[in-house]
Amino acid sequence: MGGKAVVLLSGGVDSTTCMAIADEEGFELRPISIYYGQRHEAEISAARGVALQYGQTLRTVALPPDLLASPDSALTGDREMPAATYKELMESEGPSPTVVPFRNATLLSIATAYAIQEGAEAVFFGAHAEDAHNWAYPDCSPEFIGAMANAIYVGSYRDVRLCTPLEWLTKAQVVRRGLELGAPYHLTLSCYRGLRPACGNCPTCVERLHAFEANEVADPIEYAFRVPTP
Amino acid sequence: MGGKAVVLLSGGVDSTTCMAIADEEGFELRPISIYYGQRHEAEISAARGVALQYGQTLRTVALPPDLLASPDSALTGDREMPAATYKELMESEGPSPTVVPFRNATLLSIATAYAIQEGAEAVFFGAHAEDAHNWAYPDCSPEFIGAMANAIYVGSYRDVRLCTPLEWLTKAQVVRRGLELGAPYHLTLSCYRGLRPACGNCPTCVERLHAFEANEVADPIEYAFRVPTP
Repeated sequence: MGGKAVVLLSGGVDSTTCMAIADEEGFELRPISIYYGQRHEAEISAARGVALQYGQTLRTVALPPDLLASPDSALTGDREMPAATYKELMESEGPSPTVVPFRNATLLSIATAYAIQEGAEAVFFGAHAEDAHNWAYPDCSPEFIGAMANAIYVGSYRDVRLCTPLEWLTKAQVVRRGLELGAPYHLTLSCYRGLRPACGNCPTCVERLHAFEANEVADPIEYAFRVPTP
Repeated sequence: MGGKAVVLLSGGVDSTTCMAIADEEGFELRPISIYYGQRHEAEISAARGVALQYGQTLRTVALPPDLLASPDSALTGDREMPAATYKELMESEGPSPTVVPFRNATLLSIATAYAIQEGAEAVFFGAHAEDAHNWAYPDCSPEFIGAMANAIYVGSYRDVRLCTPLEWLTKAQVVRRGLELGAPYHLTLSCYRGLRPACGNCPTCVERLHAFEANEVADPIEYAFRVPTP
């Protein structure tokens, strides 16, 4: 390869795995983090650490706080963070309370504008198969990704392609791939509450712990609480 | 209809025509203007006037100035504003010097997030056929619009549709439709230099004057200079 790739980096497991894959593929990495009113800024600090591990300075963008933030979302608003897995949430409530409406289209558009400015040929985005489970996050679905891939390709004069190497992987498979590539998971932060040690009972903490367990590997970050293995 | 529609309003002829069409179709209008580093803010003031004409308060969003602004674009950077028509530019230079890379995907994403927040069922976007001429603005092309329409539909849980009623109209046909609907063109500002009276020789001024001439109607705004009819 040898070209440049913009990587949407949140500081969590999925986007860090994307960094590792883009690096393995020989791209010159251009990580970017976008702050859109999340409750905590700790994830941008984690992203900065991951970027440094790959010898890169993180580009950060702060959007106006009311642009995407939704009072109905537990990620950005007042709604209580649920202590449950994604699947439990799906079965009980429909759309996840952590949805930020149409967030990923905005993040992908900004990442693509940056890619064009930098002369990059790819934008890496770490949506995985379980994100799209039962329409929890419609802006992680293959249908959405396919549409955005077309929009990005056409709208960039066919210079930029959308790369979503985790699109068909479960969380456990994402972690397996990252472990193979030596992804710096010790630097990541997934907890939706933004805590260090991580809370251990929000949906991402639970999902992450299960993914490491499935690989029979200890998760290298610290937890205040670990859910019992089901 | 009776539902709500978000209208991307720049204060120019095309988006004002979209307002008139969405109004004619019975939508409750939710106009939005997004400032992304244009050289002048006069167009947002024009958009505010158009919104008021339809009894609406304009929602405005200011993006960080370096997010989309490109030093290579005559719209946001240092490049000199060309005195020529779009078609002349296309024939001589390839992509228009007024391109802001991937601007429209970002604007559409923000408009869609707003639509979801407001419970609107449509986003109106005023790209017309000549915008896409010879790939001047790839993010106005039918291929781009089709891809974004899918992304918006899927990503909004199938609640929001993208409406682009000018997609297959020439500029002269856009003006004809707007005149039929009584669009308040006297309030609009198209000039890329942001001047009042309008400069009369930047690509949009020239295109706009020709479109009114083709309809044998006087353009209601003032010009400092009018190019001779070819």
